[in-house]
Amino acid sequence: MRKRKSIEEYKKGILDGDRVLLSQAITLVESNLASDIRLAGDLVQELLPFSGKSIRIGITGVPGVGKSTFIEAFGSLLISMGKKVAVLAVDPTSQKTKGSILGDKTRMEKLSSDSRAFIRPSPSGSTLGGVSSKTREAMLLCEAAGFDVILVETVGVGQSETAVKGMVDFFLLLMLAGAGDELQGIKKGIMEMADALFINKADGDNVQAAKRAKVSYQNALHLFPLGENNWSAQVLMGSSVTKDGLESCWGLIEDFEGKMKMSGFWEKNRSEQRLSWLDESIQSELGKAFYRDSKVQDRLKIEREKVLAGELSPMKLARELTEMFFKS
Amino acid sequence: MRKRKSIEEYKKGILDGDRVLLSQAITLVESNLASDIRLAGDLVQELLPFSGKSIRIGITGVPGVGKSTFIEAFGSLLISMGKKVAVLAVDPTSQKTKGSILGDKTRMEKLSSDSRAFIRPSPSGSTLGGVSSKTREAMLLCEAAGFDVILVETVGVGQSETAVKGMVDFFLLLMLAGAGDELQGIKKGIMEMADALFINKADGDNVQAAKRAKVSYQNALHLFPLGENNWSAQVLMGSSVTKDGLESCWGLIEDFEGKMKMSGFWEKNRSEQRLSWLDESIQSELGKAFYRDSKVQDRLKIEREKVLAGELSPMKLARELTEMFFKS
Repeated sequence: MRKRKSIEEYKKGILDGDRVLLSQAITLVESNLASDIRLAGDLVQELLPFSGKSIRIGITGVPGVGKSTFIEAFGSLLISMGKKVAVLAVDPTSQKTKGSILGDKTRMEKLSSDSRAFIRPSPSGSTLGGVSSKTREAMLLCEAAGFDVILVETVGVGQSETAVKGMVDFFLLLMLAGAGDELQGIKKGIMEMADALFINKADGDNVQAAKRAKVSYQNALHLFPLGENNWSAQVLMGSSVTKDGLESCWGLIEDFEGKMKMSGFWEKNRSEQRLSWLDESIQSELGKAFYRDSKVQDRLKIEREKVLAGELSPMKLARELTEMFFKS
Repeated sequence: MRKRKSIEEYKKGILDGDRVLLSQAITLVESNLASDIRLAGDLVQELLPFSGKSIRIGITGVPGVGKSTFIEAFGSLLISMGKKVAVLAVDPTSQKTKGSILGDKTRMEKLSSDSRAFIRPSPSGSTLGGVSSKTREAMLLCEAAGFDVILVETVGVGQSETAVKGMVDFFLLLMLAGAGDELQGIKKGIMEMADALFINKADGDNVQAAKRAKVSYQNALHLFPLGENNWSAQVLMGSSVTKDGLESCWGLIEDFEGKMKMSGFWEKNRSEQRLSWLDESIQSELGKAFYRDSKVQDRLKIEREKVLAGELSPMKLARELTEMFFKS
């Protein structure tokens, strides 16, 4: 095991904006060692008063939509505006897919070499629930290190979008202009989560198609119910190559921030996210202890097949297993 | 405490299609008494081999959309086709809202007086998680009693739709023609769950508006991603007064059933629903035990506020509370 630093060292380094120490602290947060978990928990607690001041933006879209190039261009724009930008990736599987941050790091060459940017790929070999929780903690650390904008990247085809929606202020869905085809890959339900759609690669011959797609989506989204925040999802278009539309995108996000802060939804949403996080963490800890139990594992292995086949009542098995678990 | 019957009596009665015994058995399933829970679990297990043969349809829509009259008309149509129809309501709050099954029973006067129909309101005073689980068990009992179609009604404004989506084969969203206004009340995310939209009250002066709404929604839904089942949500229109569109609605559901059975999705979906039910039941049992613990309650009361205010890390509190819980 690598030697860990003390909480004070991590804390000071992060508050000073030391990227190496921030990186090491995130590694600590991602660790599954019991001693690391305790240390990481204390560190996050120590840094909590310094967190929360950023804008947290979730960015999703299917592979091929140009997420990495968009983040590279959008992040660079924000940096040119004097902001510090952190990029976190959520999908545990993204290492395997091409075009992901880790799989193709050179795509964010410019951003990753800039001292005002910080790029962190998904923790490897982790499960979704774990990633979600670790990403939240990594986000807090980045905020304490002074990053103004946190971009949380997710693939848009998995189960991580709900988790990401639960940790960001604004959710951006990247789309392509060839309306229809590109949708095959995206997960149902994501569209209604989005605060904005951005039709990407709207350059050259694609511009006309992008314009048509924009109108179609605008009309469609208009028919859909507003969320609790009363925000009507907007459709934007642009290009990471020509940089068109990127400033409008940021303008929209600032408009959103202004309106939500005015209405009180911003802080309300964050408070609710904290409570959900607590609840999810409790459920996750309880679940981990339960499924780790060897007696539970043995019985589940046999009985699960019966449930799947419709021979055993899920409710009955759940009651028996939890009774057994609490007795042991 | 009321005297309970034996498992054998319930079982025989239900398999004979005895509606009084079915009703009593559902009351047993809804009970929170430890002895009842055990008996109910055994009964459901006994009847499991006789369940699963129905079509399970979720029906949702905001208050005022005409859910009760639709269910009355649609259920009557199915009965005239020789089917037996059970109606279960899910929302724990539906007792309070007008237009719900319980609040206005006379709305389903015709259906409720027919021996081939069975109408069961939500269990009173129960929580959502509980209702969802109890509704699943009630559904299995209805199936064992020979009902061919189970209509699960929910209000469309709460949190119960995801739960209902997880227990039905087909999800129908009732809408009104005045596109826009009626959406204010519906919950975001429901639209993408729907396998079909039915524009209700399309009679008299409303027909033209309904036609326009139908086209708009059709175009909109076309832009949305297909689910895993490759089904593209359809838009229908009709009236519970003139009975227009009800046969088409049933035709569509039969078409859906045929396609899904052909592709194997029908059974796959049901297997997955069983596993989710198991997992949810386990999480629910673990959560119940945890939140019932008096030490946990005492600490949560104090610390929850700190989490809400952003002063205490949710993850850290979760770990400490679960550690404490497992030690005691």
